[in-house]
Amino acid sequence: MRGSFTSLFSDTISLNFLLRNLVTSIFSFSGLSLSVPFAPILSRLILRCTACGTVGREAPALAMQRLGPLSREAWATLTLQLLRPPCTGASLLFRRVLGGLLQPPAREFAEARLKIQLESDKEKSNFVIKTPKGTRDLNPQQMAIREKILNAVIRCFKCHGAKGLDTPVFELKEVLTEKYGENSRLIYDLKDQGGELLALRYDLTVPFARYLAMNKIKKMKRYHIGKVWRRESPSINQGRYREFCQCDFDIAGRFDPMIPDAECLKIIYEILNTLQLGNFLIKVNDRRILDGMFAVCGVPENKLRFVCSSVDKLGKMSWKDVREEMVGKMGLASEVADCIGDYIQQHGGVSLVEQLLQDPKLSQNKLALEGLRDLKLLFEYLTLFGITEKIIFDLSLARGLDYYTGVIYEAVLLQAPARQGEELLGVGSVAAGGRYDDLVGMFDPKGHKVPCVGLSIGVERIFSIVEQRMEAIEKIQMTETQVLVATAQKNFLKERMKLIAELWDAGIKAEMLYKKDPSFLSQLHYCEETGIPLVAVIGERELKDGVIKLRSVASREEVDIKRENIVTEIQRRTRES
Amino acid sequence: MRGSFTSLFSDTISLNFLLRNLVTSIFSFSGLSLSVPFAPILSRLILRCTACGTVGREAPALAMQRLGPLSREAWATLTLQLLRPPCTGASLLFRRVLGGLLQPPAREFAEARLKIQLESDKEKSNFVIKTPKGTRDLNPQQMAIREKILNAVIRCFKCHGAKGLDTPVFELKEVLTEKYGENSRLIYDLKDQGGELLALRYDLTVPFARYLAMNKIKKMKRYHIGKVWRRESPSINQGRYREFCQCDFDIAGRFDPMIPDAECLKIIYEILNTLQLGNFLIKVNDRRILDGMFAVCGVPENKLRFVCSSVDKLGKMSWKDVREEMVGKMGLASEVADCIGDYIQQHGGVSLVEQLLQDPKLSQNKLALEGLRDLKLLFEYLTLFGITEKIIFDLSLARGLDYYTGVIYEAVLLQAPARQGEELLGVGSVAAGGRYDDLVGMFDPKGHKVPCVGLSIGVERIFSIVEQRMEAIEKIQMTETQVLVATAQKNFLKERMKLIAELWDAGIKAEMLYKKDPSFLSQLHYCEETGIPLVAVIGERELKDGVIKLRSVASREEVDIKRENIVTEIQRRTRES
Repeated sequence: MRGSFTSLFSDTISLNFLLRNLVTSIFSFSGLSLSVPFAPILSRLILRCTACGTVGREAPALAMQRLGPLSREAWATLTLQLLRPPCTGASLLFRRVLGGLLQPPAREFAEARLKIQLESDKEKSNFVIKTPKGTRDLNPQQMAIREKILNAVIRCFKCHGAKGLDTPVFELKEVLTEKYGENSRLIYDLKDQGGELLALRYDLTVPFARYLAMNKIKKMKRYHIGKVWRRESPSINQGRYREFCQCDFDIAGRFDPMIPDAECLKIIYEILNTLQLGNFLIKVNDRRILDGMFAVCGVPENKLRFVCSSVDKLGKMSWKDVREEMVGKMGLASEVADCIGDYIQQHGGVSLVEQLLQDPKLSQNKLALEGLRDLKLLFEYLTLFGITEKIIFDLSLARGLDYYTGVIYEAVLLQAPARQGEELLGVGSVAAGGRYDDLVGMFDPKGHKVPCVGLSIGVERIFSIVEQRMEAIEKIQMTETQVLVATAQKNFLKERMKLIAELWDAGIKAEMLYKKDPSFLSQLHYCEETGIPLVAVIGERELKDGVIKLRSVASREEVDIKRENIVTEIQRRTRES
Repeated sequence: MRGSFTSLFSDTISLNFLLRNLVTSIFSFSGLSLSVPFAPILSRLILRCTACGTVGREAPALAMQRLGPLSREAWATLTLQLLRPPCTGASLLFRRVLGGLLQPPAREFAEARLKIQLESDKEKSNFVIKTPKGTRDLNPQQMAIREKILNAVIRCFKCHGAKGLDTPVFELKEVLTEKYGENSRLIYDLKDQGGELLALRYDLTVPFARYLAMNKIKKMKRYHIGKVWRRESPSINQGRYREFCQCDFDIAGRFDPMIPDAECLKIIYEILNTLQLGNFLIKVNDRRILDGMFAVCGVPENKLRFVCSSVDKLGKMSWKDVREEMVGKMGLASEVADCIGDYIQQHGGVSLVEQLLQDPKLSQNKLALEGLRDLKLLFEYLTLFGITEKIIFDLSLARGLDYYTGVIYEAVLLQAPARQGEELLGVGSVAAGGRYDDLVGMFDPKGHKVPCVGLSIGVERIFSIVEQRMEAIEKIQMTETQVLVATAQKNFLKERMKLIAELWDAGIKAEMLYKKDPSFLSQLHYCEETGIPLVAVIGERELKDGVIKLRSVASREEVDIKRENIVTEIQRRTRES
C-alpha cells in the first residue's frame, strides 16, 4: 500500500525535485491561471502536509484536506503531476483523469485515482533510467547491421537516379494537419515554448510534398533516409517502435501513365531481392478501384472511411469477422457487405484485372474503370521489367493514409507454407507506397498539383529479421580496425604512439590500448574480442633492428617487416582478406 | 494599417481555420480552465465581431469590447494566438505579453500589442509555407557535399576503432535537466500528450552518458552522427541553425592519463587536415586550471559562473571590454579582475605550461597543479603524434557546458593574416570537446563514474565553407547515374524498359525519361543537365542488328556494342572515368 508515493515523499532530495517540477509544470500547464506568489505557497503547503509522516493510503486525502482552498484546475494539475511517469499506465490514467474531471467533483476523483496509483505502482519508486517509451538505442552490433542494409537500399535508390534530400525533423504544425486522417492523433507535438507551433514529422512524404510546393519544383526523383515518429502503442516484439527509420524513394512530376509507378515496384522488388529476406509478394490495388467498388455496392458516403479501414483488416481477420464488423458494428446493410465481400476476397494477376474490366457493375463506374485500365498498363510494364511473378492484384489492399489517390502497393514477406495447398502466410509488411497526386497541391497557394508516386522501405522490420538471422550465424564485426599497435615490453608507450600516428597518417585503421604498460596477453585478447586481424608489435629488438613484428591473430604467424614497409604490408594484407 | 489582421479576417477560409486552431489552442494552452460549451460560443463571438467589417486598427478594440466578459486568462490566450507565427517577431512578443499581462490590465496591453502587430506585419497575411524557424531543408546539391564530408569524418572515426551508436532523438526530460547550465532554456520540450515528459536532445554527449549508465558499460569507443536541437537565436549567416548535425567521437573508460585525450586531439587534427579547410589552430585548456586560477585570484563562489562565461568572450571581445563587464556589471573587485586578466591573456605552447607550473600563486593550488601536470603530459603525447604545431595552450578558453571536468579544447579556422605581425583572426569554432568524468555517474543509481573524453566536429559550419567553395569552383554532381537509356524513334518505350531492367539487374545506375515518346534532343539535354556520361540508344536498326548504340555525352562519339556485351562495356567505361 505504501508504493511510490511513500518513497518519493520520504526522500528529501526527490521531494525538492518533485516540488520544483510540480510548480513549474502547474505554471506551464495551466497557462496564466496561477499568479506568481502562489508558487512558494503551494510548495510550502505540500511540504507541510507530506512531512507529517502519514504518507500511506491516507496521504492524498490528507494532502487534499490541507490544500483544500485550491481551485479545481490546480487540483487537477496537481493530481496529474502525481500520476506522471515513471508510474506505469500513467498515460491511460492521464486521459481518464482529464476526461473525468469535467464531470464529478475533482477532489473525490483525484483521490480515487491516487489510490489506484498507489496500489498499482508499488515497485517503481525511483526514477528509472531508460529511453522514452517505444524507442530504443541501437548498439554497435545493431548499427553494423543497419549500415549494411541502408547501404544496400541507398545503392538501389542511386541506381535509379535518385538525388538525396533532407528536411527538418519537425514541421510547422499546420503542415501536418489534415494529411493523415484519424492517425493524426499519433503525431508528436512540440511544446509551445513561444514562437511557432511545431510537430515531429509522421512520415517523409508530407515533408517532401511541402518541399516541392515551397520551392515550386515540378519534377524530382529523390530519396530520403530519416527517422519518423508516431505515438502508437509500441509493439517491440513485432518490431514496431514509436521512433523508426524510413527509406523513401519518390518520383514527382507529370509523366506518361504508370511508367514511374512501375519503376517504384521494380525498386521494391530489387531491394527485397538484394537483401535476401526470403520469399515475398507485392500486393497491388488502386484507390479508384476501391472507391468505385464502394460506390457500386452502395456504401453510404458517411461510412466510406470506416468500411475502407475494415477492408484493410482482411488478411489479419477472416472475411466472416470483417463482415460482422461492417454489418454489426457499422450497421451496413448485409447485401452491401456481401457485395463488398464478393469483390475484396478476389486476388490474382492481370487476368483478374481483365475480368473486372468486364464486370457489369464495376465497369460502369468511371473511377473504377480508370483504375482498372491503369492497372492493366502497369502489369504490361511489370512484365517488361520481369517481376510479375511477385505481384498480386489484391482488392482488399486499402492502405491507411489519406493522401493516396491512385495505385497503392504493399510488399509482405512470406513464410514457406507448411503443407502444399495451404495459404501462404504473410509475416508483415516490409515496403509500401502508392500514388498521391493531390498532396503537393494542398501546400501550393494556387493549388497547383504535382503528381507523385513513391515507396517506403520498412527497414525497421528488415533490421529485426536480419539481426536475428545474423546473430544465429556469425559474429558481427562492429569495428573495421585492421591492426593493433602493441608491445610485449614495458616503457614502450611512446614508441607505440609514434608508430600508430604513422599508421593513422597513412589511412590505416589502427588501435592501441590506452595503458602505459599493457600485458601482451591483454593486447592479444583485445584483438580476438573485437576481431582485429593483425598486431604490429614493437619492442627493444624491433627498435634496434628497424623492424616491426607483424603478427596474424588467426594463424599466430609472426614476421619482421622493415619499418619503412610496414604501411604497404598492412595495406597488402588487409586488401587480400 | 490594415495588415494581416484585415486579410486574415476577410477571408472566410482562413478565418475558419484560424478559429478552429484558436479554440483548440485555448484549450490545450490553458489546460482545463475552459469548459467545453465555451468553445462554440467563443467561436461565434469572434466571428460576429470580426464580420462587422470594421477590421482596421479599431478591430481589436471592438473585438475586445464584444468579448469583454471573458476572463483575463482567456484574453491573454486569445491575444497570444493572434500574435502567433507566421507573424514576425512573434516569439519576442509572446514573451513580452506573457510578462506584461501579469501587471497592467490585460485588456489595454493586448490592445497595444495587437496594434504593434498590425503595423509591423503588413505583408504576411497568409500562412506562409516554410520550414520552422532556424531550420532548413538540404537540397540534393547540399546533400551531395554533406555526404562527402560525413564520409571523410566517419572514415577517420573508424580509423581510430570507433563503433557506431544511435540513440532516440528525444530523451526523458529528466535525463537532460541540470546538464547544460543556463543553456537548458534552449532545450526543445515535447508537448505533454499524456505519458512521459520528453525533450529533444541538446547534444550527443548526454545521451551517450545515459546509454553507458543504463547498460552499465565501463569502456567504449563510439562515434555518433546525428542531429541535435537548440532554441537559439538562429544566425543563418554564420551557419548557426536550431537544428544541426553533430559528429561525435568519445572514449569512455578508466585509462592511463592523457592517452585518450591526446587521441581526440589527433582526430580533430586529422579531420581538419583531410577536409582541407585551410589553416587552423586547436586551443587547449583545462577546467581545473581555470578553477584554480579563479580561486587564487579570489573570485567569490557566487560569481564563478559569470566570470567563467566572461572569460570565454575574450577573443570576441577585447580584454578591456571583458574587464569592464567583470568589474562594472558583476561588481568584481578590480584587483581580482586584473589578476584574472594577467592569466587569461597568456597563450603559448608547452613552455607556458612549464612557466605556470612555477607560478608562485597557481602552483600552490591543488586543482591547477593537477591540470598543469596533465597538460604537460598531453603536450608530450601530442609531440609524439606530431601535431603540436597546431596546438595552442590558451588560458582564456572556457567552454560553456557544465559537464566538463578536465582538458577542454576547441579548433578554430584561421584566415590568413592581412599583414605580417597582425594577429590571426579566428573565423569560428569547427570542432570542440573535452573531458567529462562525472557525467555518467549522474545517471548511475550508485553514482559509479565512468571517465570520458570526446570531441564534436562542427560539420554544419564546415558544410557552409565547403559549399561556398564548391559552388565557386565546380558543378556538383547530385546523382551517380552512369547511363541514360534512350531512343531516337517512336514506340520504343517497351524496348527501353526491357533494356533498363537488364542494366538495373546488373547493378548499373541507369535512368530513362518517363515519357512514351521523348524527343532525342530532350534525352540528350537531360544527360547534360544532370551529368550522365553515357547514353544507351535503342531503335529499329539496333534491335534488328542485336546491338545497342553507346554514346559518350562529352565526346559525342557513338559505337555499336553487342547487346550481350553492353553491361560489361558500360562497367568498363564508368570504371575508367
